[in-house]
Amino acid sequence: MSKSLGDIVGALGGTLIGSADTAIDRLAPVATATARDLTFVSHLRYASQLTRTQAAAVVVPPGLQAQAVLRGPCVVTDDPYLYFARLTQWWRRVHEPLPAAQIDPLASVHPDAVIGEGVDVGPFAVIGAAAQIGNGARVGAHAVVGKNARVGEDTRLHPRVVFGDHCVIGARGVIHSGAVIGADGFGFAPHEGTWVKIEQLGSVRIGDDVEIGANTCIDRGALEDTVIEDGVKLDNLIQIGHNVRVGAHSAMAGCVGVAGSAVIGAHCTVGGGAVVLGHLTLADGVNISAASVVTRSIAKPGHYTGMFPIDDNASWEKNAASLKQLNRLRERLKAVEQAIAQASEQNTRP
Amino acid sequence: MSKSLGDIVGALGGTLIGSADTAIDRLAPVATATARDLTFVSHLRYASQLTRTQAAAVVVPPGLQAQAVLRGPCVVTDDPYLYFARLTQWWRRVHEPLPAAQIDPLASVHPDAVIGEGVDVGPFAVIGAAAQIGNGARVGAHAVVGKNARVGEDTRLHPRVVFGDHCVIGARGVIHSGAVIGADGFGFAPHEGTWVKIEQLGSVRIGDDVEIGANTCIDRGALEDTVIEDGVKLDNLIQIGHNVRVGAHSAMAGCVGVAGSAVIGAHCTVGGGAVVLGHLTLADGVNISAASVVTRSIAKPGHYTGMFPIDDNASWEKNAASLKQLNRLRERLKAVEQAIAQASEQNTRP
Amino acid sequence: MSKSLGDIVGALGGTLIGSADTAIDRLAPVATATARDLTFVSHLRYASQLTRTQAAAVVVPPGLQAQAVLRGPCVVTDDPYLYFARLTQWWRRVHEPLPAAQIDPLASVHPDAVIGEGVDVGPFAVIGAAAQIGNGARVGAHAVVGKNARVGEDTRLHPRVVFGDHCVIGARGVIHSGAVIGADGFGFAPHEGTWVKIEQLGSVRIGDDVEIGANTCIDRGALEDTVIEDGVKLDNLIQIGHNVRVGAHSAMAGCVGVAGSAVIGAHCTVGGGAVVLGHLTLADGVNISAASVVTRSIAKPGHYTGMFPIDDNASWEKNAASLKQLNRLRERLKAVEQAIAQASEQNTRP
Repeated sequence: MSKSLGDIVGALGGTLIGSADTAIDRLAPVATATARDLTFVSHLRYASQLTRTQAAAVVVPPGLQAQAVLRGPCVVTDDPYLYFARLTQWWRRVHEPLPAAQIDPLASVHPDAVIGEGVDVGPFAVIGAAAQIGNGARVGAHAVVGKNARVGEDTRLHPRVVFGDHCVIGARGVIHSGAVIGADGFGFAPHEGTWVKIEQLGSVRIGDDVEIGANTCIDRGALEDTVIEDGVKLDNLIQIGHNVRVGAHSAMAGCVGVAGSAVIGAHCTVGGGAVVLGHLTLADGVNISAASVVTRSIAKPGHYTGMFPIDDNASWEKNAASLKQLNRLRERLKAVEQAIAQASEQNTRP
Repeated sequence: MSKSLGDIVGALGGTLIGSADTAIDRLAPVATATARDLTFVSHLRYASQLTRTQAAAVVVPPGLQAQAVLRGPCVVTDDPYLYFARLTQWWRRVHEPLPAAQIDPLASVHPDAVIGEGVDVGPFAVIGAAAQIGNGARVGAHAVVGKNARVGEDTRLHPRVVFGDHCVIGARGVIHSGAVIGADGFGFAPHEGTWVKIEQLGSVRIGDDVEIGANTCIDRGALEDTVIEDGVKLDNLIQIGHNVRVGAHSAMAGCVGVAGSAVIGAHCTVGGGAVVLGHLTLADGVNISAASVVTRSIAKPGHYTGMFPIDDNASWEKNAASLKQLNRLRERLKAVEQAIAQASEQNTRP
Repeated sequence: MSKSLGDIVGALGGTLIGSADTAIDRLAPVATATARDLTFVSHLRYASQLTRTQAAAVVVPPGLQAQAVLRGPCVVTDDPYLYFARLTQWWRRVHEPLPAAQIDPLASVHPDAVIGEGVDVGPFAVIGAAAQIGNGARVGAHAVVGKNARVGEDTRLHPRVVFGDHCVIGARGVIHSGAVIGADGFGFAPHEGTWVKIEQLGSVRIGDDVEIGANTCIDRGALEDTVIEDGVKLDNLIQIGHNVRVGAHSAMAGCVGVAGSAVIGAHCTVGGGAVVLGHLTLADGVNISAASVVTRSIAKPGHYTGMFPIDDNASWEKNAASLKQLNRLRERLKAVEQAIAQASEQNTRP
C-alpha cells in the first residue's frame, strides 16, 4: 500500500519540498503519525504540532513552510484540510478500487426496470418495476429500490438501503446502510379517540451530491414531496419528517430530528441530537448547536443554542429545583427592588 | 389520474355544491393547489385561505359553505380534515392498487409456517417455523418473520422489517421498513465490574390497527411481554424498552425513547425526541412536549414540558452560566429579603 | 417447559431449602408470579415482597432466608440478581436451544471467505471476500459481512446486521438486528460553500463480550479505527461517531449519541438519549444521566446531569421565559445587594 510523495503531488498538486521518493504507507493524524506516514497541519495556530510529529512528511499551508522544511519533506498548499480530503479520495481509489460492476445473479431486477451502463447490483438487491438506475450507479446487497424510483448517475446505495416507490435521487449521491427513504410520513386525523391514517401521496426528491447516513429516515410527503437539495450531508440516525425541505449544502450531525413541513435554509448546520419542530422556517446560514430544540422560526443567520448545562448531579438537583421556581424568584426580586426604591425615596424626601 | 368531484362524493359522501363533472387531477395543500386540484379548509379560522386558493374545489365545514360557493365547487362535511384523510386512502386505492398477492419464488418460507389466504410475500423475505401469517397480510421484500411469530389479518410489513420469534401483531397493522420488533431488551446484572446478560424471555404483543415507523425498535420483555395496545401510532426511530406498555390510541413522534417498564396510558401523545425514563406511569390523556424528559410518574392528564428555550448563542452562554448558580442566587435573594424585612422593622420601631 | 427446583439448583448452585420436586413452569417478576413460577428478591429492603408474592419458590439473599422459608421453598445465594441472570441463560439454553448450525443454501458466501467450524449462516446472508467467521459464530438471515471483516468465535449477528469491510469483532459478541457497523464517519472539508468528502479509511475494532443493540450505528474511523473495548454494552439506536473509543465494560442506554473522537473511559454509564460532544474525554467511572449533554471533558468519576426539569406546560412557559433573562436577573440581584449594603453602611455611619 505504499506510494511515493511524488505520486501524491503528481495526482493532487501542491508544492513538494524534499524528496519525491519519500515513501508513504499510510495517511495519519498528526499526533500518531509514524516514520512512513503522511499527515497535515491545517492552520498556523497548530504550528507546535510540526515539531512533535514523527510523520515522514506533512501537508502545510504557506505560512508554515519555513518551519516544516526544518523537519523534513512537506507539501505546501493553500488549504491543507481540503487537500487531505481529496487525498483520502485518491488513496481509496488507488488502494481499494471498486470491483467491476455487475448485476449479481442473486439480485431481483424487475424486467421493466431501466438499468444504465456500468451499473453494479449486489446480491439480493431488489429493483422494482419501472425503476431507473443511472449510469455507473451502485445498488448494494439487500438494497430495495421501489417501483418507479430514480437513482442518478454514479450514486451509490450501500447494502440494505430502502429507497421507496417514486423517490428520486440525483447524481453522485451516497446513501449508507439501513437508511429508509420514502417511508410514510406520520399523518393521522383524530376521530372519536382514534387516529385515521392520511395516506402519504407525495414522495422524496433528493438533489445531486447528497450523502445520507446509516439508518437515517426521510419520509415521503403527504400531498407534495419532501425535498433535500443539492449537496446536503446528513449523518446517521436522523429523522426527516414529511414535507420538510432542506436547503442546499446544509449539514446535520447524528440523531437530529426535523418535524414535518419544516423549511431549513441553505448552508445551515444542525448539531447532533438537535430537534427542529414542524412548520418552522430557518433562514440560510443558521447554525443550531447540538441537542438544542428549535421551537420558533429563525429569520437571521447566526448561532443558536438551548441546552441545560451539565453539572455534577448534586448541583444540578439544586439548580433544577430552583429553576422550577424561577418565575416566582423573578417576582420576588421585583418586590425587593420596589421596596428598596420606596425606602430610598423616603430617605431622600425632605 | 383524473377523477371527477362526483366520483369522490359518490365514494366518500359529503354534500356536493357545484358541478359533479369538475375534474380533479390531484389532492393538494390549500396554498399550492392549482386549477385541477382538490383541497380542504378545516376550520373557520382559516377562512381567508378560501379567497386565495386556486383549487378547482374545496372541502369545507358547514360554516364556510357560504363563502366557499362564492369561489366555485365545494364539498361540505362536518370534519374536512377527517374527510381528507379518508380521501387520501381512497385516492391511493384507486390510483395505486396493491399488486395481486403472491408468494415470491425468491422468498424463504419455512414449511411449517401457516400462511393465510391472499397473503403476499416479497422477494428474499424469510418466514420462520410455525409462524402464522393472517389472511390478506403482506410481508415485504427482505422482511424476516421469526419462528412462532403471528401476523394478523391485513397487516402489512414493509420491506426489511424484522419481526422476531414469538412476537404477535394484530389486524390491519402497518410496520415500516427497518423497524425491529423483538430484539433483546437491555438487561444485565453487574458482576465484578462486568455485565452478565439477562436473557430476554418475553416477547412483544401488539394490538390491532397499530402503525410503527421506519427503523423504530420495540424490545422483547425480560420475563413478561412488552405490550403495544390497539390503535397506537409510533413514528420513526423510536426506542421502546423491554416490558413497556403503551396504552390504546397513544401516539409518539419521531426519535422518542421510552425506557424499560414504563407504563404509558391510553390517548397520550409524546412529542419528538422526548425521553420517558423507566418504571414510570403516565395516566391516560397525558401530552408530553417534544424533547422533554419525563423523570417522574404523571398521575394527572394534561400538557407537560421541560426544555431549555433556544436563544442566540451568546445570550444562551450567559444564561446557562447563571443557571449553574441559580440555587446560590436564590439564597442571595432570600438574604436580601431578610435584610429588607429587618431594616423595615427597625424603621417602624418606635 | 417445566423444570424442578432441584434441576435448577443442580445446574446453577445455591442452597435449596424446601422440596427439590417443586415444579417451575416459568421465571416471573415477583409481583406477578403465580403458583408454578420461580421469582427472586434481590435485597433486604424488598423483604415485604416476600409476604405478597404467589410464587412457587423465591431466590433470596442469606439475610432473607428466615423470612422466605416461612412462605415455602427458596434458593439462598449471595447475589440473587446475578443468579437470576444466569438462570435466564440456562432457561433459554434448555427450552430453546439454538438449531444445529448450517450454511443456508440461500446464503451468498464468497469462495475466499474463511468459515470456522460449527458456523451458522442464515438465508440471504452475504459474506464477502476474505471475511473470517470464527468457530461457532452465527450470521443471521440477511446479515452482510463485508470483505476482509473478522467475526470472533461464538459471536452472533442477528438477522439484518451490516458488518462492514475490514471491521473486527471478538468472541462471544452479540449484534442485534439492523445495527450498522462500519458505515462512513461523517467527515467533510468545507470548500467554497460546499462539502468535500473525506474518505473514511479506518475501520471499527470491537473487543470480546460486546453487545450492540438494534439499529445502533458505529462508524468507521477517518484515518485510524473506532474502538469498542471488551465487555461494552450498547442499547438500541445509539450513534457512535468515527474514532470514538469506548472503554471496557461501559454501558449506554438507547438513543445515545457520541460524536467523533470522544474518548469514554472504562466502567462508565450513559443514560438514554444523552449526547457526548466530540473530542472530549471522560474518565473511568463516569455516569451520565439520561438526556444530558456532555459539553466538556470530565476528569473525575461521579454522576453528572443536565436536563430541564419537566413541569406542567403553563409553569414551564413562565420559568422558561424568565430563564431567558436569568443573567439580567443576576445583575439586578447584584444591584439590589449593593443598594442594601450602601444603605446599611449609611445607617451605621456615626
